Amino acid sequence: MTSLQTSRTLGVAAIGYAFMGQAHSNAWRTVANHFDVPNFEQKVLVGRDAAAVAAAAHKYGWSESATDWREVIARDDIDIVDICAPGWLHAEIATAALAAGKHVLVEKPLANSMAESLAMVAAAQAARSVGVRSMVGFNYRRVPALALARKLIAAGELGTVRQIRASYLQDWLVDDSAPMTWRLRKETAGSGALGDIASHAVDQVQYLLNDTVADVSGRLHTFVTERPGPDGPEQVTVDDAAWATLTMDGGAVASVDVSRVALGQKNALRLEVYGTAGSITFNLENPNELYFLNGTDPVEVQGFRRILVTEPEHPYISGWWPQGHVIGWEHSFTHQIRDFLLNIANGTDPSPSFEEGLGVQRVLAAIEASSAAGGATVPTAAPQLVSKD
Amino acid sequence: MTSLQTSRTLGVAAIGYAFMGQAHSNAWRTVANHFDVPNFEQKVLVGRDAAAVAAAAHKYGWSESATDWREVIARDDIDIVDICAPGWLHAEIATAALAAGKHVLVEKPLANSMAESLAMVAAAQAARSVGVRSMVGFNYRRVPALALARKLIAAGELGTVRQIRASYLQDWLVDDSAPMTWRLRKETAGSGALGDIASHAVDQVQYLLNDTVADVSGRLHTFVTERPGPDGPEQVTVDDAAWATLTMDGGAVASVDVSRVALGQKNALRLEVYGTAGSITFNLENPNELYFLNGTDPVEVQGFRRILVTEPEHPYISGWWPQGHVIGWEHSFTHQIRDFLLNIANGTDPSPSFEEGLGVQRVLAAIEASSAAGGATVPTAAPQLVSKD
Amino acid sequence: MTSLQTSRTLGVAAIGYAFMGQAHSNAWRTVANHFDVPNFEQKVLVGRDAAAVAAAAHKYGWSESATDWREVIARDDIDIVDICAPGWLHAEIATAALAAGKHVLVEKPLANSMAESLAMVAAAQAARSVGVRSMVGFNYRRVPALALARKLIAAGELGTVRQIRASYLQDWLVDDSAPMTWRLRKETAGSGALGDIASHAVDQVQYLLNDTVADVSGRLHTFVTERPGPDGPEQVTVDDAAWATLTMDGGAVASVDVSRVALGQKNALRLEVYGTAGSITFNLENPNELYFLNGTDPVEVQGFRRILVTEPEHPYISGWWPQGHVIGWEHSFTHQIRDFLLNIANGTDPSPSFEEGLGVQRVLAAIEASSAAGGATVPTAAPQLVSKD
Amino acid sequence: MTSLQTSRTLGVAAIGYAFMGQAHSNAWRTVANHFDVPNFEQKVLVGRDAAAVAAAAHKYGWSESATDWREVIARDDIDIVDICAPGWLHAEIATAALAAGKHVLVEKPLANSMAESLAMVAAAQAARSVGVRSMVGFNYRRVPALALARKLIAAGELGTVRQIRASYLQDWLVDDSAPMTWRLRKETAGSGALGDIASHAVDQVQYLLNDTVADVSGRLHTFVTERPGPDGPEQVTVDDAAWATLTMDGGAVASVDVSRVALGQKNALRLEVYGTAGSITFNLENPNELYFLNGTDPVEVQGFRRILVTEPEHPYISGWWPQGHVIGWEHSFTHQIRDFLLNIANGTDPSPSFEEGLGVQRVLAAIEASSAAGGATVPTAAPQLVSKD
Repeated sequence: MTSLQTSRTLGVAAIGYAFMGQAHSNAWRTVANHFDVPNFEQKVLVGRDAAAVAAAAHKYGWSESATDWREVIARDDIDIVDICAPGWLHAEIATAALAAGKHVLVEKPLANSMAESLAMVAAAQAARSVGVRSMVGFNYRRVPALALARKLIAAGELGTVRQIRASYLQDWLVDDSAPMTWRLRKETAGSGALGDIASHAVDQVQYLLNDTVADVSGRLHTFVTERPGPDGPEQVTVDDAAWATLTMDGGAVASVDVSRVALGQKNALRLEVYGTAGSITFNLENPNELYFLNGTDPVEVQGFRRILVTEPEHPYISGWWPQGHVIGWEHSFTHQIRDFLLNIANGTDPSPSFEEGLGVQRVLAAIEASSAAGGATVPTAAPQLVSKD
Repeated sequence: MTSLQTSRTLGVAAIGYAFMGQAHSNAWRTVANHFDVPNFEQKVLVGRDAAAVAAAAHKYGWSESATDWREVIARDDIDIVDICAPGWLHAEIATAALAAGKHVLVEKPLANSMAESLAMVAAAQAARSVGVRSMVGFNYRRVPALALARKLIAAGELGTVRQIRASYLQDWLVDDSAPMTWRLRKETAGSGALGDIASHAVDQVQYLLNDTVADVSGRLHTFVTERPGPDGPEQVTVDDAAWATLTMDGGAVASVDVSRVALGQKNALRLEVYGTAGSITFNLENPNELYFLNGTDPVEVQGFRRILVTEPEHPYISGWWPQGHVIGWEHSFTHQIRDFLLNIANGTDPSPSFEEGLGVQRVLAAIEASSAAGGATVPTAAPQLVSKD
Repeated sequence: MTSLQTSRTLGVAAIGYAFMGQAHSNAWRTVANHFDVPNFEQKVLVGRDAAAVAAAAHKYGWSESATDWREVIARDDIDIVDICAPGWLHAEIATAALAAGKHVLVEKPLANSMAESLAMVAAAQAARSVGVRSMVGFNYRRVPALALARKLIAAGELGTVRQIRASYLQDWLVDDSAPMTWRLRKETAGSGALGDIASHAVDQVQYLLNDTVADVSGRLHTFVTERPGPDGPEQVTVDDAAWATLTMDGGAVASVDVSRVALGQKNALRLEVYGTAGSITFNLENPNELYFLNGTDPVEVQGFRRILVTEPEHPYISGWWPQGHVIGWEHSFTHQIRDFLLNIANGTDPSPSFEEGLGVQRVLAAIEASSAAGGATVPTAAPQLVSKD
Repeated sequence: MTSLQTSRTLGVAAIGYAFMGQAHSNAWRTVANHFDVPNFEQKVLVGRDAAAVAAAAHKYGWSESATDWREVIARDDIDIVDICAPGWLHAEIATAALAAGKHVLVEKPLANSMAESLAMVAAAQAARSVGVRSMVGFNYRRVPALALARKLIAAGELGTVRQIRASYLQDWLVDDSAPMTWRLRKETAGSGALGDIASHAVDQVQYLLNDTVADVSGRLHTFVTERPGPDGPEQVTVDDAAWATLTMDGGAVASVDVSRVALGQKNALRLEVYGTAGSITFNLENPNELYFLNGTDPVEVQGFRRILVTEPEHPYISGWWPQGHVIGWEHSFTHQIRDFLLNIANGTDPSPSFEEGLGVQRVLAAIEASSAAGGATVPTAAPQLVSKD
């Protein structure tokens, strides 16, 4: 089992070197330049193509590369496994790594199916009991503006939250002739926009309100039903847009809608939270800005304030630059790694936990079920799924 | 029967002098200063309280006031009846006025119930056959930016529209202690945010896309269920927020959500239309701006353009000021009166017709039905509705 | 001499029916519909072309038209003269009207030259002593957002103001081939962008800070020096852009820059006021919005607030619509007429007075002088100017 | 002398580990993860305080630390010297390093005085003749949006540029009680906002227009003239705000104004470029956005486009993330290092060169001279200063 004493340099392995692999690698590469974290080493980058992964390892600052993740997680000098592989591999790798006593960070969504998610939660619970940590990578929780939003809501600055509107709009599939990929096949991707981006939106709803979803009514839709595949036209078997309304356990109502065909919207995770005493809005395309309205200000001067979340008083900013010198999208990954490392060093459990990841999966599954049932309301928490949480 | 020759000065009566009465009066008062319209006269303003309506008539430029609308619509010198009374009076007044051969403009929504709406459509059809005109006051169609949006979409600038997101957020009911009014009782208001503001959103969806809604899944919610009434706490019997997804006959999917408790949003009718070749966004709080993305621009310079809709080339603007000198919310009513008068003079039928108003009512009724059924999908236009509702 | 008792209906004559004439007429036409004002009548519209002015009078709601302003100001039934004629006529008409005991509202800038301005001030002072009122039409003071800004600054919400940045950017002369007009000839227009739009910017600087300009350094420039005239190419003899820095008597520093060739800027009067405790920004293209930063808010939630200036608590708004229902550019003229009428009724002196108009002219003259001197600092209010200019 | 063959790993030393040292270190640390660059090594970080620089070296990824820059530039294994020390040290270190055959990157502004700047240019010219490269760190040239702006202007998309408005507003000195620092003493800082931030604004004016300044009229001002020093109140001897108008050699007119007391503006380098056929605006607080108006679009759909500069088609973006995933302020330094390394590898001269840095200094010196002369116009290029450019 991995030693947790922080005097030992933690060995890190990452699995996957595509988009998410690059983002995570960048975070490992820079986190210590900006934050006080336990000593660690970027040891191994794992991928299937030996030459490609070797090149990526060199480029992204990993000491070695490897092609067999099972060998890597068996190594004594590896303490942390960072899983950036596609979703269908999450469960297998994560459960094996946890069983091997490695701390695990896994990209979101937790897995492609409820069954896999449940297995991962079980593995995380077992590992936790022996001090092995696990975390799911809903990195947007560590965008400073959203961390600030959560803090303001928790402090009661919005009063009682009644409504939250969450949408995540992209346009990379707007073109009918964009080709098939594994992301558009149900067997590899699980779902489309739902798992990929609605997962973030749902996580934010639960995170910001510190509440969970009770039931949902939802709808999935595929605007482009066929795309050019390697052997001719191929059926798209996942959604490219989704809509849902969610009832929160605390009584608030959330709406979520996502799309990959919203032409002109590039990465627009937009959040609007309306309370009895204040409101908040946010757009990930301008991640350094949080808009906040204090409903207790005199009406004459009330309005949404553009808070440029770059002050030392703001979450995570003390590691970066002076006020007004904005940070980028990838910094949320850096903050995630920082917090994960601190959890390991301090012997505390990271958040979002696998259980929280499972909570998001339950909402997504309920949306799918509701859509299949023509929009009928579906509760999220099937009792048999839950032993303890 | 009313003479239609434009050489005769048209006599106008308006019924109602509250918020909408003031807005319509302002439009009658100013339309001829800015547009070439047939001669008309602001003859009578009608209301229940003799003293108050007399004062309002004086203030808003009407020659006389009256308290009995039946007498007024019987007058030979009245050619046009502009109904700004509350929704539960629409059907009675409109059908009587049309039967008396008066051209009728009625505020939205068309009526509080499907039955009343159908009766009004029948009356309008009968009147139309003898040259009597009727129009329902979805004034936002005449906001220049939205008229431009419709024009661009009709011209194919967006390609095929796939999605439209419509929301209308206000906050005037955010305070729990705001008192009961007729607007919060089902028997007088019919519905809450649904009829009042979702009606505008639904009308815009159908107007912008020149398409009709096939089916809906919806949800109504009342956040503040009890408010101070004249005799103590009283139950709020209408919704203060609503959410729906709509399938258009042409295949597009629309989402609509509205609220009266979205703190900080004052009059935010927001529209986003996403097509295969272009996109449009709009917010009524900045009504002179239309945002348009041309998807055929080179990617390097593609983006949403802020079009300040104040050029002589833009709809209705030639009647107003030089470029950049913006107009206000109430100007949409002025444009509505202008077009209505031209329809009368030219012997053409105004749009939105009562049938279009009924079309909106059908969607609202379907949203209510879907909400009552827990979100199940409900078709909007069952033909049997015409005879039975 | 004009009777001031408000029981008598005030007779109004307006001179000029072009752009400003239409804007003023609209204000006279609508003011009583929205505000409690003394009784008045739109009696006569005056212009040079008998047929055109008759048509304009009919369209804009004036009872009569006339071509000789001298005859009109001699009429006993005329109490108010509203001068919308070009600047070179201001002095002659205004001094005559005041001498005839008529209350005078004159469009800005006060006049084309310092000499004329001084004569007008002398006339206003003489008239004031016998109860005759005069006002210069810097209408933007009555944009609710700017009236609110002034109020906030006066209340100390910004602490001590250090800097103000004022710019007014338009683009209607961006095209080289746009033809010559009287506005581009020094003998008719006096100056170009300087008198036309820098006058507004300078007035706002003095109005918002409730302070006057001590000295200036400025520069005028003509980008398009020749334009097509009726008889071939003609020299443009006025500036189409100007820049200046102004020292305020109170120690603040203002910058002003204006242009008629700033492509894409349509009517962008932008103001930014920076104090020790708060800041304000504004753009006339979005006239219903004021941005205010309260520097005493906790840093964590500090930021510019978008105040939608449409609440009953805001200046002038109680005459208009519910919150969020925005007003347009021309409403500032309506407010100006309202205040002017109330001054007349109450026997108080309007602001901006002719002296305030002269104050602006002195700043403009100093900018011209500084520009001619290569940017050297020029004091604005040399006492000897009063006798010689 | 340094070998230029790229097969050899380039040894890098950086001098300074404060704000700029951290920003440069971050760039060295990450550049190879995102871009193909020649092999290099972060060898030595140099500072005065041995313990502090050792800690910084460890944190920022440098192999060693040192306290004597002279020793470091004498080392054979050092090929590149990156000077992040305060401005008063630039000349001494840069000339020594260039003389030692090291490629030099020096932070802006080039130096604190014209004499030092001239010496540095002479050293750069001598070094260039033997293949040694030099660059001054106007990093904002490598913000992708600004690189795109330059490209669009160079391609003629704006037609002939007439006006450019550049401002740089910050507020870190708004508080009277903020203490004295070396940045507020003329002997150490040379100037205040002028050298620190007007230098960026002036560089952008020259960069974007690919033109140089012919003459200036300017003004410096110190709002807070005394601040708490270590031994009691101390005189502030530099400006905290500056204003200038600049005539470009090509005929355009630029305005520049900067402030350190503009409360609420955090890092607002704002640029507006107005041409005969198009316009551009930018704000460094939203560095991923460029606003572009194409004046040849039909008027009906003309407007400023928000280009989210995150597409693979945009400068530098291919090294980063998919569209819509924004980058931060510090990435401009990464791009700067990338280009500098490529220049070294390819044997080409970097831009901005020391001559370009000197060009900025000349403008700043002229602004100071003009301010001292009460705003009188001052030419930038005193003949005796220029031997060749």
